[in-house]
Amino acid sequence: MDIGMVGLGRMGANMSRRLLHGGHRITGYDADPQAVSVLQSHGGKAAASLEALVHALVAPRVIWLMLPTSQISNTLSTLAPLLSAGDCVIDGGNTFYQDSIRRARTLGLLGLSFVDVGVSGGVWGRERGYCLMIGGEQAVVQRLEPLFMTLAPASGDDSGAAGAERGFLHCGPAGAGHFVKMVHNGIEYGVMAALAEGFDILRGAGFARRETVGPGIDPAHYAYDFNLADIAEVWRHGSVISSWLLDLSAMSLLLDGDLADFSEQVPDSGAGRWTVRAALDEGVPSPVLTAALYQRFSSRDRDAFGRRLLSALRYQFGGHVAGPGPVPEK
Amino acid sequence: MDIGMVGLGRMGANMSRRLLHGGHRITGYDADPQAVSVLQSHGGKAAASLEALVHALVAPRVIWLMLPTSQISNTLSTLAPLLSAGDCVIDGGNTFYQDSIRRARTLGLLGLSFVDVGVSGGVWGRERGYCLMIGGEQAVVQRLEPLFMTLAPASGDDSGAAGAERGFLHCGPAGAGHFVKMVHNGIEYGVMAALAEGFDILRGAGFARRETVGPGIDPAHYAYDFNLADIAEVWRHGSVISSWLLDLSAMSLLLDGDLADFSEQVPDSGAGRWTVRAALDEGVPSPVLTAALYQRFSSRDRDAFGRRLLSALRYQFGGHVAGPGPVPEK
Amino acid sequence: MDIGMVGLGRMGANMSRRLLHGGHRITGYDADPQAVSVLQSHGGKAAASLEALVHALVAPRVIWLMLPTSQISNTLSTLAPLLSAGDCVIDGGNTFYQDSIRRARTLGLLGLSFVDVGVSGGVWGRERGYCLMIGGEQAVVQRLEPLFMTLAPASGDDSGAAGAERGFLHCGPAGAGHFVKMVHNGIEYGVMAALAEGFDILRGAGFARRETVGPGIDPAHYAYDFNLADIAEVWRHGSVISSWLLDLSAMSLLLDGDLADFSEQVPDSGAGRWTVRAALDEGVPSPVLTAALYQRFSSRDRDAFGRRLLSALRYQFGGHVAGPGPVPEK
Amino acid sequence: MDIGMVGLGRMGANMSRRLLHGGHRITGYDADPQAVSVLQSHGGKAAASLEALVHALVAPRVIWLMLPTSQISNTLSTLAPLLSAGDCVIDGGNTFYQDSIRRARTLGLLGLSFVDVGVSGGVWGRERGYCLMIGGEQAVVQRLEPLFMTLAPASGDDSGAAGAERGFLHCGPAGAGHFVKMVHNGIEYGVMAALAEGFDILRGAGFARRETVGPGIDPAHYAYDFNLADIAEVWRHGSVISSWLLDLSAMSLLLDGDLADFSEQVPDSGAGRWTVRAALDEGVPSPVLTAALYQRFSSRDRDAFGRRLLSALRYQFGGHVAGPGPVPEK
Repeated sequence: MDIGMVGLGRMGANMSRRLLHGGHRITGYDADPQAVSVLQSHGGKAAASLEALVHALVAPRVIWLMLPTSQISNTLSTLAPLLSAGDCVIDGGNTFYQDSIRRARTLGLLGLSFVDVGVSGGVWGRERGYCLMIGGEQAVVQRLEPLFMTLAPASGDDSGAAGAERGFLHCGPAGAGHFVKMVHNGIEYGVMAALAEGFDILRGAGFARRETVGPGIDPAHYAYDFNLADIAEVWRHGSVISSWLLDLSAMSLLLDGDLADFSEQVPDSGAGRWTVRAALDEGVPSPVLTAALYQRFSSRDRDAFGRRLLSALRYQFGGHVAGPGPVPEK
Repeated sequence: MDIGMVGLGRMGANMSRRLLHGGHRITGYDADPQAVSVLQSHGGKAAASLEALVHALVAPRVIWLMLPTSQISNTLSTLAPLLSAGDCVIDGGNTFYQDSIRRARTLGLLGLSFVDVGVSGGVWGRERGYCLMIGGEQAVVQRLEPLFMTLAPASGDDSGAAGAERGFLHCGPAGAGHFVKMVHNGIEYGVMAALAEGFDILRGAGFARRETVGPGIDPAHYAYDFNLADIAEVWRHGSVISSWLLDLSAMSLLLDGDLADFSEQVPDSGAGRWTVRAALDEGVPSPVLTAALYQRFSSRDRDAFGRRLLSALRYQFGGHVAGPGPVPEK
Repeated sequence: MDIGMVGLGRMGANMSRRLLHGGHRITGYDADPQAVSVLQSHGGKAAASLEALVHALVAPRVIWLMLPTSQISNTLSTLAPLLSAGDCVIDGGNTFYQDSIRRARTLGLLGLSFVDVGVSGGVWGRERGYCLMIGGEQAVVQRLEPLFMTLAPASGDDSGAAGAERGFLHCGPAGAGHFVKMVHNGIEYGVMAALAEGFDILRGAGFARRETVGPGIDPAHYAYDFNLADIAEVWRHGSVISSWLLDLSAMSLLLDGDLADFSEQVPDSGAGRWTVRAALDEGVPSPVLTAALYQRFSSRDRDAFGRRLLSALRYQFGGHVAGPGPVPEK
Repeated sequence: MDIGMVGLGRMGANMSRRLLHGGHRITGYDADPQAVSVLQSHGGKAAASLEALVHALVAPRVIWLMLPTSQISNTLSTLAPLLSAGDCVIDGGNTFYQDSIRRARTLGLLGLSFVDVGVSGGVWGRERGYCLMIGGEQAVVQRLEPLFMTLAPASGDDSGAAGAERGFLHCGPAGAGHFVKMVHNGIEYGVMAALAEGFDILRGAGFARRETVGPGIDPAHYAYDFNLADIAEVWRHGSVISSWLLDLSAMSLLLDGDLADFSEQVPDSGAGRWTVRAALDEGVPSPVLTAALYQRFSSRDRDAFGRRLLSALRYQFGGHVAGPGPVPEK
């Protein structure tokens, strides 16, 4: 198929290459001309502007946006007036699904189709393929199937496998793709945190060799010195918690068992919050996904004032009018 | 090697078959004679009692216990006097690692070796191999390596891969194997709960079609009707959360999208609690693993009294002296 | 002052009586004529409809709504066209503050003032006074001060204490009163849950007399038989956790130590969810308030499907293709 | 009564003064001679050593220990051989109740009585009285009642109120006092955290004036600028969350709304961990109390390694081999 690709960052560039390799024709645009050149070097065509991109494509056009969340609105404002009824815009970013529902409605009034696609796979996707979660109208999604077939992992096979088994799924109407991707990322937060906590506990298993133990604790129970990289590696082979995130953990720990180069401040990209918000709206408890999210908030000291209040209260009932210092609860 | 296997339940039986298939000689004992017959039918030898088992083996003996946690103490009490210095007992169960530390010490006084092995892989292990986490003295563990080579997943290869890459690891001294398995299971609780919460949120994504939405919620945002089996399947292909537990989720949801046959009361087998206890002793926060554990407690109504107190308080400040019923917070 | 009171349920009726007792003149309306009669018996005037209520008051009117959240919109739609520029409507309910911001804006376009007041105190408020959290324009709030003086606890004193010390506070512009009340209720959820968990742990402190203890637990450590009512009572006297909710706990436990009449399903009235949503929007972690909220969700089995998935996974890796039953993690 | 008081720190000194004021005779010992002098200045007698203290008292002696947890064992080792059968030792510290059970047993073998008393009230206790939670044998506890009557808040009344209503309670056999105090402190952690989170959310309620809001958020909803000291103050008057910890919050916020002098690292003194451990042993969920505890762990960066692992994983699937920086989830 002919596609316009808007946004040639890491994800957009890699997806374009996979699509080119699968026989599709890509015209690409990016604010950074360097990114466009790279696309050209892999066989794509360059557009110098959104206008140029639109003119380079024949209606009914298919334009895939692979942009940061914050740029979608502006790009659509510029793009929509340039397009013709019957054209289709795909948002492949990590967009809040409620925005996608709204955009599908707005673009629909102009006769344009909107498809939201959650894309998972990271930088490994170019070779391994991408997992695609798709929202939009049935007929439009079906028309785009050749793209999804190429991007998804099982692109090369002729096993007759249906979509989900090939790695793409039409999940439902507008926003459904981004909703499912949102929950996917919410789960990802939870799995990452479960691994992080487990490795923290393993790393602390020798604390009695460095600190005095509290009452009810036998120092002989906390005298281990575990090799975390080895443990991550062994779990990859036959254990119940085998997973891709465990593979990545093993790789990280092998490179540097201390992970000294990595930040203790962990960003959250939005999907975690939106997942918890959906849980709240639905009245469904999600303590694990929420704890994983809050840990990231805390890592960035978003509860610093509350902690100072805890200290202040300890001083109040412990008798200190001011000044920090350790005071036992009374 | 020659091994005595005590406990021929699901795990013990399957491990015995994998060991027999790998060329080892097994003499088995189980309180259930039927289980022993099955072992014989696969080429193992039968022992009618622990005494018979000990006598059927030549010193230095290797006896592998594959028993429920609650039977280890009694079995060791019976077994220890029958053994000779230099014999080795392996506990392959889900034993509390502090008990294993104590037992290694006690058996050591008798000149016996004790090795604790955490075994992961479930019923799939017979074919796929087991992930083995091992604690004990270096020399003893090394002597047992042929067993571990056979049980671990990469048993058939001659790639020269080291232990961890083959699926077994000597993690440290006595108790280390059970400690690492404990944390493994703790993580497993967390990953399972992350998946369960995610699917609960997906399942609730159409609630606005059945219930009135609260303030600040647009019913158009919660009108989906997701096919959870398809979503689980698509995530298995190329997504960041690909994992064996996701594979099993997809299988479960495919068989029955409602999971109507399964209990809403979820047991916990001990490892989750012990992991959290280790986190407490170490002073390491583990909100995700703990939330996963508490969810299981709650599923069994272990907080029923506390909930009644919440209701009672609501009635107190809402003005109801007795009797249940919905009262808004004041 | 002259006030119209719309909604004479438990809260509206009690507040009206306190206002009447403080010398204000109340004209009341309620869909239930019985409620209006009761007001009359305490010295208020009756209105048979919203129209009648409006006509009974002289402009600039003050109308206080004390209604369930779900009735505010309709009531305002009826009321607004009947009012004149300069009139003021007060919403004293547990309304989502974002709705109050919107309503202040809408009514403002009509020249009407809107004041949002969070009211705490429950049924005890008639005698003890109500804690009032107020949002709206400075001049309007000031004009209403005589009402707040009467409703607040320190109404009778002439100590010259400022508002906050008397029990009412102008917190900020439109919505501020309901925002502060929302967070108040969020904290209330947390405090209630902390008490409930503590009493659950005290109640469980004799479990070793009824159940087998797990590994690492000495049954002598869990052989207590605490009198929870006495413990709640003693904590009321001089302890750091003295609080009104503890007073109510003591009262509840005294009446029935088992709380047998109270429901294990605990509703949530909205404020808890909104508080957590605000925390999410702000990026502030609120693990305690969120855990308290989720416990209420769980008490109503909102995670039933997720729990079944946990059971299904346990059967999958434990080897059960179908059917419930306890299987240890592998 | 005649009492020996060992440990004249903040708590011990204040309690001694209250006892002296109530007509009891105190002989005091502290490793710091300065502390002993202060006691003398208030009418107590000084002992230069534990031996001297024991000799200054007439059998059957009553010796109250008011010491840090870590000094109890050594002090009892020194003290026990100096005492005579029938003497009684009281531990009024924040001791792990399982240690108290053990000590009661050990001292009992020597014919000595042991009573464990949880003391709440902080520095305010000297004037307001202390809440006392008592464990030990019925007869011994009864003999000590004059002390408890004086220390408890309602010491001066002759209302005929029973113990719990006066502020002291014989909770059960050995360890019961410290168990109940442990849970008291666990609840205290939860209530403190609930307040801290609430004030954090109030403080963040103007974030949209400083930061860009995410999707789905209206900046007009987060434009407040709350006065936290005023809000704490108003809640003290008639609200459902009125409590002593709220009083202390109001006082703290009044002195410095920023709490700039207080530490963001919050210690935990043991009781919080023990409470959660009891919850685990009992199989009772305590998500709120546990979240409050973990927040303190996190405040001291006890999860720093886990956070670095989260960052490492983000780089792995986001394509960064090394080096920190913000990468959106893929």
